[in-house]
Amino acid sequence: MTLYLDLAELLGARIEQGLYRPGDRLPSVRALSVEHGVSLSTVQQAYRHLEDHGLATPRPKSGYFVPLSRHTPALPQVGRAPQRPVDVSQWDNILELISLPPGSDVLQLGRGIPDISSPTLKPLLRSLSRLSRRQSMEGLSYGCIHGDPKLREQVSRLMLDSGCQIPPDEIVITTGGHEALSAAICATCKAGDIVALDSPSFHGVMQALKGFGIKALELPTDPLSGISLDALELALEQWPIKAIQLTPTCNNPLGYIMPEANKRALLTLAQRYDVAIIEDDVYGELAYSYPRPRTIKSYDVDGRVLLCSSFSKTLVPGLRVGWIAAGRYQPQILHLKYIGTGMTAQLPQLALAEFIAAGHYEPHLRRMRSQYARNRNRMTDWVSRYFPGGTRVSQPHGGFMLWVELDSAFDSQQLNRVLLPHKVQIAPGSIFSAAGKYRNCLRLNYAAPATTELEEAVRRVGAAAGELLAELRRTD
Amino acid sequence: MTLYLDLAELLGARIEQGLYRPGDRLPSVRALSVEHGVSLSTVQQAYRHLEDHGLATPRPKSGYFVPLSRHTPALPQVGRAPQRPVDVSQWDNILELISLPPGSDVLQLGRGIPDISSPTLKPLLRSLSRLSRRQSMEGLSYGCIHGDPKLREQVSRLMLDSGCQIPPDEIVITTGGHEALSAAICATCKAGDIVALDSPSFHGVMQALKGFGIKALELPTDPLSGISLDALELALEQWPIKAIQLTPTCNNPLGYIMPEANKRALLTLAQRYDVAIIEDDVYGELAYSYPRPRTIKSYDVDGRVLLCSSFSKTLVPGLRVGWIAAGRYQPQILHLKYIGTGMTAQLPQLALAEFIAAGHYEPHLRRMRSQYARNRNRMTDWVSRYFPGGTRVSQPHGGFMLWVELDSAFDSQQLNRVLLPHKVQIAPGSIFSAAGKYRNCLRLNYAAPATTELEEAVRRVGAAAGELLAELRRTD
Repeated sequence: MTLYLDLAELLGARIEQGLYRPGDRLPSVRALSVEHGVSLSTVQQAYRHLEDHGLATPRPKSGYFVPLSRHTPALPQVGRAPQRPVDVSQWDNILELISLPPGSDVLQLGRGIPDISSPTLKPLLRSLSRLSRRQSMEGLSYGCIHGDPKLREQVSRLMLDSGCQIPPDEIVITTGGHEALSAAICATCKAGDIVALDSPSFHGVMQALKGFGIKALELPTDPLSGISLDALELALEQWPIKAIQLTPTCNNPLGYIMPEANKRALLTLAQRYDVAIIEDDVYGELAYSYPRPRTIKSYDVDGRVLLCSSFSKTLVPGLRVGWIAAGRYQPQILHLKYIGTGMTAQLPQLALAEFIAAGHYEPHLRRMRSQYARNRNRMTDWVSRYFPGGTRVSQPHGGFMLWVELDSAFDSQQLNRVLLPHKVQIAPGSIFSAAGKYRNCLRLNYAAPATTELEEAVRRVGAAAGELLAELRRTD
Repeated sequence: MTLYLDLAELLGARIEQGLYRPGDRLPSVRALSVEHGVSLSTVQQAYRHLEDHGLATPRPKSGYFVPLSRHTPALPQVGRAPQRPVDVSQWDNILELISLPPGSDVLQLGRGIPDISSPTLKPLLRSLSRLSRRQSMEGLSYGCIHGDPKLREQVSRLMLDSGCQIPPDEIVITTGGHEALSAAICATCKAGDIVALDSPSFHGVMQALKGFGIKALELPTDPLSGISLDALELALEQWPIKAIQLTPTCNNPLGYIMPEANKRALLTLAQRYDVAIIEDDVYGELAYSYPRPRTIKSYDVDGRVLLCSSFSKTLVPGLRVGWIAAGRYQPQILHLKYIGTGMTAQLPQLALAEFIAAGHYEPHLRRMRSQYARNRNRMTDWVSRYFPGGTRVSQPHGGFMLWVELDSAFDSQQLNRVLLPHKVQIAPGSIFSAAGKYRNCLRLNYAAPATTELEEAVRRVGAAAGELLAELRRTD
């Protein structure tokens, strides 16, 4: 174990034992450095670690403090057992979110945009810029349908961290994660088929189901452990389900990590009922704990798991580079990719391959994981402080999204309408359900570094929510 | 009329009248400059123009000559009347073409790759490189689903040249032309429907039909005037056709430009039978004549034409930027785009908008049109010279593709197998037919500037074709 982790563990134990109490000032960096004979930066690293785990809070120019014993908000409730497969609705509410141009002055708290201001991204931009100047066939012409060989090699290496040994030629680069997921659905289902989903679930996938005329069966999902295996088994028994689609690691929007045992059990169920698993791992590398959790794909023995991912959440969305390891479905995926986009742009692929090969990806991930973990604590604090009493909040273990649940009569679409003149936008909960459930929920993005403007925006969302709720209670 | 055109017309008339005979040296640039009192560059421009029209040939350090009276090869034959709608085949043959990585040492004479070595592309690469360095939300985050507003404005302006007055908000930017065409098909048809096509036709579209379970009805197509309107009318009478898909301007692979009267008549037929038209205009701006031909879309009054295009043939394919003006189908297109790719990458859109706004696009097009017109003449010469007697050849009026038809017993897939060890690849004709017709045809790319290597490759293709034919005749 490294020095800073030793020290962090020691301090953490003292805090948990009550030697330092909530609100207490913790020993100064200098004092600890002398006391333990370690460098100042080691102590700082230890405090960073404690901060990531919610055990220390920095105050500018005053040092570190034990966080005030804050009220940990209750978790969101588990959705009801499924009624039946439904046709997907909600497109209009999504269209509103994705029609804003990037230069717009609306603070988009609802979209799945990572923090793209980190200096650890600079080498990627430099590569892209340099490669863009070259007037070469490699960068500017049609690439190979599978994607660039150098990038596939890097992706294959990255996947080892999630327990997957997948050779480069079983990976297909796609135009973002959307193309991967969309192709995965097309490759495994046809119009009229049924797909089982975690719920709440990513709207992009549900809209793909809608587009292809496939029905969605939303299953009860625990905010800490994910999709209910009992409900899934019952559903597999009852309906001719073709595929299970889920985001088991750093779920979007709930942020949980499905336990390994559940992942294995889910695969066993899929084998027993012979259905495909479409595993969205787009936030998987942003798990706050290290090493990153394994994917369901890592247990796959008969090629039934289609693992879909991208660099849109870990690096930047604008490059539109994702991938799929589709197992036995790879031939169909290649055809679907050809008819969908012909190929994926070469330049971003080449730049990404360079960035990863040069060793820039891991440090970037480390930084973002730690930033997002801190931001989660802060956003949870803000919501506890500024939202109406009784508000429930998810406890994300990765990614940068908070799921917020209000009183069952609340309407988050109405909230967005109220927020419109204030130039703030949240993601209404209903878009995360095929049937438009979760109207009383919303999703908040906590990727960006804290600013007073951001805090003010969250405060405003909370206040607006409070006013809407008060109104509701008056008219009741 | 400008000076150089006056002079070109005069010289052209003299050549056609036989004052200068095939093989004759034409007057020197200097002599003409003195004789007509115009600048040297005006004379050079005039010769360039004659060269583009096949009336003059430069010989290094010797000046311009009247081309040797060459045998103009016969045109390809018109396909037979359609049998019935069919399921599309041929995927494996296409997969072979698109699996080569761009760095491969195989000379890809079969793919639709423009010449990307022109210096007129430099400002585009500079823009892209500069924009790539900026760590901005505008370039790196999710854009608006419709595409970047600045680029849509430029595309709207460009479309005026083809007679279309389409406001920017009726244009959707897509990830290449593939996404536009694929979405157009999905928006107008569902599984089991029938689409009428020109024939031979672009394989990308036919594979999309295959992917979506839609049947293809291939109609007889004249190598100079395009799809047979009589056959189309008969087909519309006989089958429940949902859409007509065609490339009427600088057709791929035949290179013809459908006459304006035919375009109007086709629209009238579509209105009468209430079917959609999916118009692929991806080569339209590469028509050798100026001004560029009108699109069918330019006559559209009720939003039934879905105009699909891209910068993949006019600039570079690797940026993956296309667009669609989908008329009444725009809402469906937005949904399909969202589920297909989520959005189109921002950086290439911003770079393209800059490039066009700064006035770099028109000069580039002029240069490429003229280069491709010259290359067409040369490639036609080479094929006449190196291919077996009786070979038929298209007469492209735009783009950079030559369609070559050999003896009906010939097999161009076999030709590719023979060429494999020689590192040359052609596009076998069968991929341009839903039913695998045109096995005796092939498509050659003449975009690249002439080199001895290129001529040698064409010679080798011709020789290999000759040997295969001779073998066929021996075994007959």
